[in-house]
Amino acid sequence: MKKKVVLAYSGGLDTSFCCIYLTQDLGLEVHSVIVNTGGFSDEELKSVEERAFKMGVTSHHVVDETENFYNTCVRFLTYGNVLKNNTYPLSVSAERVSQATAIANYAKEIGAEYVAHGSTGAGNDQVRFDMIFNILIPGVQILTPIRDLKLSREEEITYLKEHGVEMNFEKAKYSINKGIWGTSVGGKETLTSNLGLPEDAWPTQVTATEPKNIELTFEKGELVGIDNETYSHPTKAIQALQAIAQPYGIGRDIHVGDTIIGIKGRVGFEAAAPIVIIKAHHTLEKHVLTKWQLSWKDQLSSFYGNWLHEGQFHDPIMRDIEAFLTSTQDKVSGKVFVELYPYRFQVTGIESSHDLMSNKFGSYGEMNNAWTGEDVKGFSKIFGNQVMIYHKVNSQD
Amino acid sequence: MKKKVVLAYSGGLDTSFCCIYLTQDLGLEVHSVIVNTGGFSDEELKSVEERAFKMGVTSHHVVDETENFYNTCVRFLTYGNVLKNNTYPLSVSAERVSQATAIANYAKEIGAEYVAHGSTGAGNDQVRFDMIFNILIPGVQILTPIRDLKLSREEEITYLKEHGVEMNFEKAKYSINKGIWGTSVGGKETLTSNLGLPEDAWPTQVTATEPKNIELTFEKGELVGIDNETYSHPTKAIQALQAIAQPYGIGRDIHVGDTIIGIKGRVGFEAAAPIVIIKAHHTLEKHVLTKWQLSWKDQLSSFYGNWLHEGQFHDPIMRDIEAFLTSTQDKVSGKVFVELYPYRFQVTGIESSHDLMSNKFGSYGEMNNAWTGEDVKGFSKIFGNQVMIYHKVNSQD
Amino acid sequence: MKKKVVLAYSGGLDTSFCCIYLTQDLGLEVHSVIVNTGGFSDEELKSVEERAFKMGVTSHHVVDETENFYNTCVRFLTYGNVLKNNTYPLSVSAERVSQATAIANYAKEIGAEYVAHGSTGAGNDQVRFDMIFNILIPGVQILTPIRDLKLSREEEITYLKEHGVEMNFEKAKYSINKGIWGTSVGGKETLTSNLGLPEDAWPTQVTATEPKNIELTFEKGELVGIDNETYSHPTKAIQALQAIAQPYGIGRDIHVGDTIIGIKGRVGFEAAAPIVIIKAHHTLEKHVLTKWQLSWKDQLSSFYGNWLHEGQFHDPIMRDIEAFLTSTQDKVSGKVFVELYPYRFQVTGIESSHDLMSNKFGSYGEMNNAWTGEDVKGFSKIFGNQVMIYHKVNSQD
Amino acid sequence: MKKKVVLAYSGGLDTSFCCIYLTQDLGLEVHSVIVNTGGFSDEELKSVEERAFKMGVTSHHVVDETENFYNTCVRFLTYGNVLKNNTYPLSVSAERVSQATAIANYAKEIGAEYVAHGSTGAGNDQVRFDMIFNILIPGVQILTPIRDLKLSREEEITYLKEHGVEMNFEKAKYSINKGIWGTSVGGKETLTSNLGLPEDAWPTQVTATEPKNIELTFEKGELVGIDNETYSHPTKAIQALQAIAQPYGIGRDIHVGDTIIGIKGRVGFEAAAPIVIIKAHHTLEKHVLTKWQLSWKDQLSSFYGNWLHEGQFHDPIMRDIEAFLTSTQDKVSGKVFVELYPYRFQVTGIESSHDLMSNKFGSYGEMNNAWTGEDVKGFSKIFGNQVMIYHKVNSQD
Repeated sequence: MKKKVVLAYSGGLDTSFCCIYLTQDLGLEVHSVIVNTGGFSDEELKSVEERAFKMGVTSHHVVDETENFYNTCVRFLTYGNVLKNNTYPLSVSAERVSQATAIANYAKEIGAEYVAHGSTGAGNDQVRFDMIFNILIPGVQILTPIRDLKLSREEEITYLKEHGVEMNFEKAKYSINKGIWGTSVGGKETLTSNLGLPEDAWPTQVTATEPKNIELTFEKGELVGIDNETYSHPTKAIQALQAIAQPYGIGRDIHVGDTIIGIKGRVGFEAAAPIVIIKAHHTLEKHVLTKWQLSWKDQLSSFYGNWLHEGQFHDPIMRDIEAFLTSTQDKVSGKVFVELYPYRFQVTGIESSHDLMSNKFGSYGEMNNAWTGEDVKGFSKIFGNQVMIYHKVNSQD
Repeated sequence: MKKKVVLAYSGGLDTSFCCIYLTQDLGLEVHSVIVNTGGFSDEELKSVEERAFKMGVTSHHVVDETENFYNTCVRFLTYGNVLKNNTYPLSVSAERVSQATAIANYAKEIGAEYVAHGSTGAGNDQVRFDMIFNILIPGVQILTPIRDLKLSREEEITYLKEHGVEMNFEKAKYSINKGIWGTSVGGKETLTSNLGLPEDAWPTQVTATEPKNIELTFEKGELVGIDNETYSHPTKAIQALQAIAQPYGIGRDIHVGDTIIGIKGRVGFEAAAPIVIIKAHHTLEKHVLTKWQLSWKDQLSSFYGNWLHEGQFHDPIMRDIEAFLTSTQDKVSGKVFVELYPYRFQVTGIESSHDLMSNKFGSYGEMNNAWTGEDVKGFSKIFGNQVMIYHKVNSQD
Repeated sequence: MKKKVVLAYSGGLDTSFCCIYLTQDLGLEVHSVIVNTGGFSDEELKSVEERAFKMGVTSHHVVDETENFYNTCVRFLTYGNVLKNNTYPLSVSAERVSQATAIANYAKEIGAEYVAHGSTGAGNDQVRFDMIFNILIPGVQILTPIRDLKLSREEEITYLKEHGVEMNFEKAKYSINKGIWGTSVGGKETLTSNLGLPEDAWPTQVTATEPKNIELTFEKGELVGIDNETYSHPTKAIQALQAIAQPYGIGRDIHVGDTIIGIKGRVGFEAAAPIVIIKAHHTLEKHVLTKWQLSWKDQLSSFYGNWLHEGQFHDPIMRDIEAFLTSTQDKVSGKVFVELYPYRFQVTGIESSHDLMSNKFGSYGEMNNAWTGEDVKGFSKIFGNQVMIYHKVNSQD
Repeated sequence: MKKKVVLAYSGGLDTSFCCIYLTQDLGLEVHSVIVNTGGFSDEELKSVEERAFKMGVTSHHVVDETENFYNTCVRFLTYGNVLKNNTYPLSVSAERVSQATAIANYAKEIGAEYVAHGSTGAGNDQVRFDMIFNILIPGVQILTPIRDLKLSREEEITYLKEHGVEMNFEKAKYSINKGIWGTSVGGKETLTSNLGLPEDAWPTQVTATEPKNIELTFEKGELVGIDNETYSHPTKAIQALQAIAQPYGIGRDIHVGDTIIGIKGRVGFEAAAPIVIIKAHHTLEKHVLTKWQLSWKDQLSSFYGNWLHEGQFHDPIMRDIEAFLTSTQDKVSGKVFVELYPYRFQVTGIESSHDLMSNKFGSYGEMNNAWTGEDVKGFSKIFGNQVMIYHKVNSQD
C-alpha cells in the first residue's frame, strides 16, 4: 500500500511539480490541500481543484480558514494595531502560519506519513512550514522537493512537459499573494533597494476618484459595522470595507524587513481594509485607553507581530499576549469617522461612550473646574522632584 | 531697587497682560525674552520686540535656539523616528522644553529673582515651564498670573485697555504654534472628539499640484543634503525641505494624546519636513540596521518621546538614551528617494554602502549560495525546538 | 446633624490625634475603620477597637481583607515574582493600596461626606490614600490633619493630654508594619545611607538553628501545599510557611528605592514566606515556561510592581497585565524542594509534569537523538546570518 | 604543503582526540590555542602546552584575554548587574564568546584554512563557536570532529591509545569551568531537575567561618578598590575580592535556563566575587540613579545578557547598549559596605557624593521643607487624574 503525503497545493508551477514528483518518482499517494484565508474566489478554488486532479492527486481538500484565521490571529493583529516596523500589516506572514497549522491538522486527521510544501530555500515560508510541522506533527516527515532538488524554473517545466502536463507555463511578472489581511506583490523592483513599483504592478488599479465619508463601528476592538450596516462576522465587515476602500488605492506601500533567515526582504503590498481598520482602531483607542495601556500595547503588539512573522505562533507566550490584548479591548467600542480619497484617507474623529476626552473633566487648554492651578503647581514640583535633586546633588561636578 | 523678573513673552494677549501686571501691580522690573526655535521670521521677532517695549519692559532679549534645539533634541527625534503614538512628531512639546531651558539659563545669567510664564492651568506647558524652572533654577520664584488670577479673555482685555494698552484684541480662530519641527493648530474642532479641521484652518494652503521626485542624503542619521545641494547645518536642510514639501500639504494630521495632567488633548498639526524626514530615515534604517537595533530603537525612542513630551528632558536617562541612539546611527548614511504628491508622499527606495539587502548574500525568495536548504532545515528544527518540546510535554493536558 | 467622616485608624499616636481633632475641633461624627491584610492578631484588633471607642468614635469597623488582598493583588505579585528593584516584595506598598480601596468602599457604603487618614507630608502613603480616594470616591472630601497642621510629636501629645486622653506615648524605636506579604522596619539606621539594622531591630529574632527540608506544592502558580499538607486558601499556606521559615531569619534585607514623591526612601524588611515563595515559584517557572514567557513576565511584572508601588492599582492597565500573568500560569504546577538554614535558604530542585527539561528530548551537554550535529550547524549558520552580512558589508569602514 | 588548522585546545579528552585526528587522519598542520579568561594558573597553562606538543601540534599559543575580556564584556555585565533569569552571572557564556573571538582573530592572523573546536552536538558552545567563526572568519572552514563522529568516550579513549597517547583517561565526576567571572559545575545532579549539588561537588570548600566587613570602592561603575587597597586594573580587584569571599562559599547556586538550542540546561556555579560585586554595585546605583535609569538599565541589561548568552556578541545592537550602559555609570562612584558570612553576605550601606538620598531634600517619612502638604495634595490629584476620569466615564458599565 502506498504511503500518504499531504501536499500544500496552490496550483502553480512549483507545487504542480511536487505533485508529479511525489506521485511518480517517490511513489506516494498525494492528498493535495489548499487553505483559503480569504483570498481565493470560488472559481479560483474550483480551478485549483481541477488542476490538482489533472496532476494525479488521490484526493483534494479545500480548508476554508477565513473565519478561523480571523478568530485566532487577525483579531489580535487588529487589537494590537500590528504593523511590522510601523509599515506592513503582516498580510502573508500571518496567513502562512494559519495555513501551515491547518495543513498539519489535516495531515494528522488523515493519518499521513509525509507532509510536503513547495517552498524554495530562500524565503520565510520554508521556515514557517517546517517549524509548524515539526511542532504540531513531529512524527510526520517533511518533504520539500523544490528546495532539495534546486531545480531551475526551466528544469521544472521540462520535467512537467516530459510527464505530459499541460498548463500555462508563462511566468507572471509579479508574484501576488492574496488573503483577507492584504495582498503582497513581489518581483523585479522589489528585488532592488532603490526602485518603487510602477503603477501597473499593483493588482488593484485605482478607479475611485470621488472622496467618500464612511463610519466604522467597533465593538470591543472588532470592526462590526460600516455606515448603517452590521455584519454577522468581522470577516464580512473587513471584506465589505475592502470593496469600498480598495478602488481608492489606499494602503499601498513597500516594506523592507528582516526575514527569518537573516537577510533583508522587500515586498510591495496593498491592504486597504487592514490599514484603514488599524488607523481607525488606533484612533479610537487613543480616546478610550489610558496612557500606559497605549504604551504597553505598543510593546507587546510589536513583539507579537515579529514573533508571528517568524512563525512562532505556537509559542505559549502568544496566548499570554492575546489574553493581555483581549483585556485591553474592553472599552474599545464606538464609531470612527473616515474620509477616503484616491491613494490616501483621513480619520477625522470618533464617538464613544468611553471617550476619556470628555469636557466634563476639563478641556485641554481651556478653563476647568476639576483641579486648580495650585494643584498643578504642586504636581509640577513633586513630578520634577527627583531630577531637581539629581541636578542639585551633582551640580559641583 | 526693583526686583528682576524674566518673562517668557510671545506678544500675545496673555503675556502682554503679564507684562503690565508684573510691572505695575507687582512693581517688578520686567525683562522679556522670546526664544526662537525656528518658527519666527525676523519681522515677527521685530514686531514682538516693539510690542514688549510698548508694554514697558526694561529689556527685551531674543534667544535664537534653532541650531541648539536641533543639536540637543530634534537630532534625537530624528534618530529615533519619534512620532508620539505613531502620529505626532512632538513639534510643540519638544520646543517648549527647549524654550524653558533657554529662559532658565537667561534668568540665571541676569540674576533674576523671579521668572514668569503666561500659561493657563489647563495645558501641558505650565508643567513644562514650572518643572524645568524648578530643576534648573530652584531658587528663582515662578510667577504665573494668568493661571493664578483665572481671568477671562474679556477681563484681560479690559485690564489692558484700562492700562492704556492698544493692540489687536481680536481672537484668532485657531491658535497656531510654529517651530522648525512642525506647526500645531488648535481650536474649535480640536476641542471635540469627532470633527476634523476644515481645509482653511491649516496654516499652509496646498498650492503644489505636480508630483516631484526628491533625493535626501543622510549622514550618520542626519539630513545633510537634498538633491544636489549640501547644507551647512541640518536645520538648513530641514528648512529647505520644508519649503519644498509644505506646499503639498504633506504631514497634516490630528493627534489625540495624553497630556501631562491626565486629560486627553487633541491638536492638529502640519509638519511636512519632519514627517518626510522620519519616514525616509526609517526606511534607510530598515536597510542598514539589524533586527534588534530596529526593535530596541523603537522601544527607547518611544519612551524618549513620551518623557520629553512630559517635560522630563533633564532626567539623566535622556542622556543615556541619546548615547544609545547616537551609537545606532553609525551606519545610517545614504540616499533616500521620495516622491511628493498633493497631501501625500511615497518613499520609493534607498541607496547605501551599508545596505544589508545586498544580493551578494542571497536574495529574498531567490536562489542563493551562502547557505543550503539543509542549513535552513536544521535551523527550523532547532529554532522550533522549545515550542515542539512544550507541546509534546503538555500534549496530555 | 453631624457629618460623617470615615477615619483610617491604627490605634497609634497620629490617628488617635485625628480622632479627637475630627470629633471635637471639626465637629464630625467619626467612624473609625481598620483594615487587616493579615498582619493583625485578634487581640491587636480588639485592643485597637477599645482604644477607638475611648477616643470617642461613633462606630468602629474591622475589614478583614486578607483573602481579598491575596486574590486581587498578592496572587499577581507571586505570578510575577515581583521584587522591586530585585529586592523588596512590596510588602507595605501593596497593602496600603488594598487598605485605601477597602476604606473608600466603606465610606461609600455608609455614605460618609469625609474620609480621613493620618499620613504626614513626607511619605508614599499620603499619595496612595489621596489618589485612591480621588479615584474611587471623587465626591468625598479628604481630611489629613497631621499633614495639614504639621504638628510635632510633642504637640500631638500635649493636645491629646489636654483632651484627657491616656495612652502609651512612648515612641517605639522602630516603626513596624506587618501584613501577610511581609513586615517593614523603619527608623534610625534606615534614615542613613550607610548603616545596616542591628540584630535586635528585627521584629523576629532567629531561633531556628537546624537545617530543614520542605516541599512546596504549586498549582497554576499558587502555593497550595507544604510537605503533605494542603490548605483551603493560599493565604493559609503563606501563613503556615511563614511560621516555619520566619524563625530562621530568612528574607531580611534593606531596600532603598524611589518614593512616589521623588526622594529616595530606605526601609528594612523581613519577609520569609514571600521571599521563599517567589524564589521557589520562579525556579519552577524556569522549568516549565518558554524563554519568551520568562522574558516578558519579567518586564510586565516589573512595571506592575512599580505602578502598584505608586498607588496606581486602579489603572486598567493593571487588569490587562493580570490577564497576561494569569495566562502564563497555566502550567506552573508542581513541587519545589527547599532547604532552610539560619539566615538563608536554597532551592534544590523541582518536580513537575510540565517540566521542559525532560531527557526524552536530549540533555544539555549529553548525546541526543532529537536533532543532529548537522541541524545545529545549519542553525548556527542561519542564526548568525544577519550579523555575518553586517560585518561583511561594513568591513571596509 | 599541509593546510593549517587552528584548534581550540583545553588539554582534555575531546580536544586531545581532535589533535590526533586532525593531524593523522586529516593530514592537517595543527596550531593549538588556549584562551585564558582568568581561570587558568600558569602551571595549568604550562601543563596544557606540554600535552599539546605531546599530541603533535606544530605550534601552541596562549592568548591572555583576561583584561580584554573584562574591558569588552565583564565591564558591561557589571554596569548592567547582569544575572540571567535573576540568577546566573553568565560566567561560562560570556567567556566562550570572548574565547571564540580570540581564536577567530588568531586564525586570521596566521592565515589558517581551518578552525576546529571540540564541542559536542548538545550544548551552547557549539553554536557560539560556529556562529562567531562564521561571522568573523567567514572563509575559514569549521571542523568539529567530536560532533560529527559522535564517538563515545570509550571509543575516543581506544582511538587515543591506539595512536600511542598516554594521559589520565579517568572521567572527572563533575565538569568544571573556571574564569574570572565565575566557575561552573556540571554533572550527575545537574542532569536532573530535582537534585541539588552535594557539598563536596563544589570546587571551593568553605573554610572561612568568621564574619568579615569589607568596603568596596567603585568608580564610574567599576570596582577599583577594596578596603584601603587600590588596584591597577579592575581584574586585579575582582581577583582580590575573589580570594577574600570565596572561602565563605558565597555566590553558589544552581541555575536552570534556556539553551540556545531550545532545551533547558541546568548548571551549578560558584561566583563569589561576581555576585558580591553585582549586589554591591546595584545598591550603589539605587542611591545615585533616577527611577527611569534603574528601570531601563534592567530591561536593556537583561536583553544584553540573553543575547550574549546566545553568542550574539557581534551584533551591533550590543555596542549600542554598551554606549547606553556606559552613559548610565557617570555618577556610579562611591563606597559600598559589605558583611561576609559563611554562605551569605549582606550589603549594609553606601557612601557617595552622588547619593540622591540626602536629607537636605527631605527625608522619607520625616518632616521636610522642600515641598508642602499642599504640593503633594495637588500632585496626588493630577497624578490620579486620568484613572479618576476613566472610572467616572466608565462607571455606568
